[in-house]
Amino acid sequence: VTWQTLQWIGGPDGHLTCIDQTRLPAELVLHECRTAEAVWEAIRQLRVRGAPAIGIAAAYGVVLGVQAVADDDPAALRRRLDEVLAYLATSRPTAVNLFWALERMRQVVQTAPPQTPVSALKEALLREARAIHDQDRVLCRAIGRHGAELIADESGVLTHCNAGGLATAEYGTALAILFTCQDQGKRLHVYVDETRPLLQGARLTAWELVQRGIPTTLICDNMAAQLMREGKVQAVVVGADRIAANGDVANKIGTYGLAVLARAHGIPFYVAAPLSSFDLALASGDPIPIEQRPAEEVTHLAGQRIAPQGVAVYNPAFDVTPAHLITALVTERGIIRPVERAAIAAQVGSHAPSPARPAEPAAR
Amino acid sequence: VTWQTLQWIGGPDGHLTCIDQTRLPAELVLHECRTAEAVWEAIRQLRVRGAPAIGIAAAYGVVLGVQAVADDDPAALRRRLDEVLAYLATSRPTAVNLFWALERMRQVVQTAPPQTPVSALKEALLREARAIHDQDRVLCRAIGRHGAELIADESGVLTHCNAGGLATAEYGTALAILFTCQDQGKRLHVYVDETRPLLQGARLTAWELVQRGIPTTLICDNMAAQLMREGKVQAVVVGADRIAANGDVANKIGTYGLAVLARAHGIPFYVAAPLSSFDLALASGDPIPIEQRPAEEVTHLAGQRIAPQGVAVYNPAFDVTPAHLITALVTERGIIRPVERAAIAAQVGSHAPSPARPAEPAAR
Repeated sequence: VTWQTLQWIGGPDGHLTCIDQTRLPAELVLHECRTAEAVWEAIRQLRVRGAPAIGIAAAYGVVLGVQAVADDDPAALRRRLDEVLAYLATSRPTAVNLFWALERMRQVVQTAPPQTPVSALKEALLREARAIHDQDRVLCRAIGRHGAELIADESGVLTHCNAGGLATAEYGTALAILFTCQDQGKRLHVYVDETRPLLQGARLTAWELVQRGIPTTLICDNMAAQLMREGKVQAVVVGADRIAANGDVANKIGTYGLAVLARAHGIPFYVAAPLSSFDLALASGDPIPIEQRPAEEVTHLAGQRIAPQGVAVYNPAFDVTPAHLITALVTERGIIRPVERAAIAAQVGSHAPSPARPAEPAAR
Repeated sequence: VTWQTLQWIGGPDGHLTCIDQTRLPAELVLHECRTAEAVWEAIRQLRVRGAPAIGIAAAYGVVLGVQAVADDDPAALRRRLDEVLAYLATSRPTAVNLFWALERMRQVVQTAPPQTPVSALKEALLREARAIHDQDRVLCRAIGRHGAELIADESGVLTHCNAGGLATAEYGTALAILFTCQDQGKRLHVYVDETRPLLQGARLTAWELVQRGIPTTLICDNMAAQLMREGKVQAVVVGADRIAANGDVANKIGTYGLAVLARAHGIPFYVAAPLSSFDLALASGDPIPIEQRPAEEVTHLAGQRIAPQGVAVYNPAFDVTPAHLITALVTERGIIRPVERAAIAAQVGSHAPSPARPAEPAAR
């Protein structure tokens, strides 16, 4: 595997390239972002997707957003920074890593001495974005190591959406666990939900798994229950976009239904995510804003209309899985099991800066 | 609503037209069948689909299959009939109405006096096919009347696949209940699972509902759980392809998962089907053959590949929902509740001729 989801080219005046995930698996296209607006668009249009990757891209978006500030005007940089942070926070409302990464970028400038020159601030911002990027690489490996302990040899594992290398700096969260199992010589069979409407499972996860030579079977989302009933699934492993203090998990629509089905069939349900996906300011998942996406994602396929004129569409991007349906959470620090407030606080508590996220769902 | 799913044009030498359901909702195209082979192909390719409609089409297919028999050779007609019956039985392995309708056609000839002229047998076969067709119209209305008692005013109702007018002679089974509610002035909101891979919900059910002016919202299959969690669904209503003596129901893939989700949310789960869908020779749903359909239905959409090369596909056409998850069955004779062997035998017992179905799943 030689591709990189996100890559920064050059110094503080450089630019970002990202794999355009909307073009996979047909073609591997690099998409250039030279402005904060281009990053916002790439996130909104799902060219960049996956909570960790969104955070990294947004951090680089901040670097791009302050490039035009004159080198002799530090006050202008601070004003522009606030603007860019607020703007990038509106790109996707659910992924908390976005707000977490933007908060880290804010603190770089906030904690710098007032007399710091603009050029030094720009360099420090790039350094921080690169650090977020590099740290994600390392923590994905750690998630993989911890999570692999949960998966027995010769398991059938079901996953949903894409929590793989494309969704992170590399290696992934949920998929990191499967990749680590493979490295350890465990023989898995992975079942992939296609994940309507945007088919991230069929297009992205199946692509990553096949590239690595892992036996992979694609299913439609509505086939998961039958697969479980046939005894083919020993574990479900998914990622997360936001995890509340009590362990409720916001993730791609369909995750909650899978968790209900897994419970009904006695199958363990694991959620893998970095500490930056935890939002301890949220007591539970109830207030997490559920992004509604455009009707056309459901009514059209490959440019063709598949539903009649006049039909309404319900198209939530996410759902919330209550903690009681989750067997264990896997982070870079280890396994949280059972999924309870105290255990989460003990492992996550010291990590996250209070994220500067909007109180209300972003307008769209 | 002026269209007819199936229409026989002319006398014993006439032909069948069917709405090509693979072309909806983009266009309403009538497909002509002038041979038994054309009917077999129309069923296999899902131009005609829905258990009752398949039974009716197969009956007309028998009429077509014996047209070429010379009028002076009654033995040839009986030989040819056996051939055609065996052949048409291989078109779809799961729908029991198919075998039930073929058995009715067989008995027309079997019970005719040996000296009956070929022309009279051909006429009797057409009369029987027309009777099956007409009886389906009447029983759909009865199913609608009985089932409407189960649905309260202002309910949100979720349905899966298409158990509507297109799947039957007209009016439908599951949808007949909703159409009857509408006629009674009940205000429903209907949620329609798109029903991957072939999108019968998006293409066919949404089309039928919008045509009748019923408020309709399309969802992807993996959104049903979230919809239930939000309290938007007061009942789930689906059709059936085969019902065993104990009440286990074979129906479109995804039905079983919906039933598990409905139970987890305390939502009643109703199955509407004519008595001809019951197979009392089956003690339970376990031995029902589950048709596996081609991988391309999942890997390709509108002619475009959406999954990488090298991925395997699991594509069962049906699943089996165990009786204990079903709140009630609705037939043309009334409501069966609770869904138990004795209640089923009492209502269905006297109805079905022992169906001449293959012991094994059809080869494909």
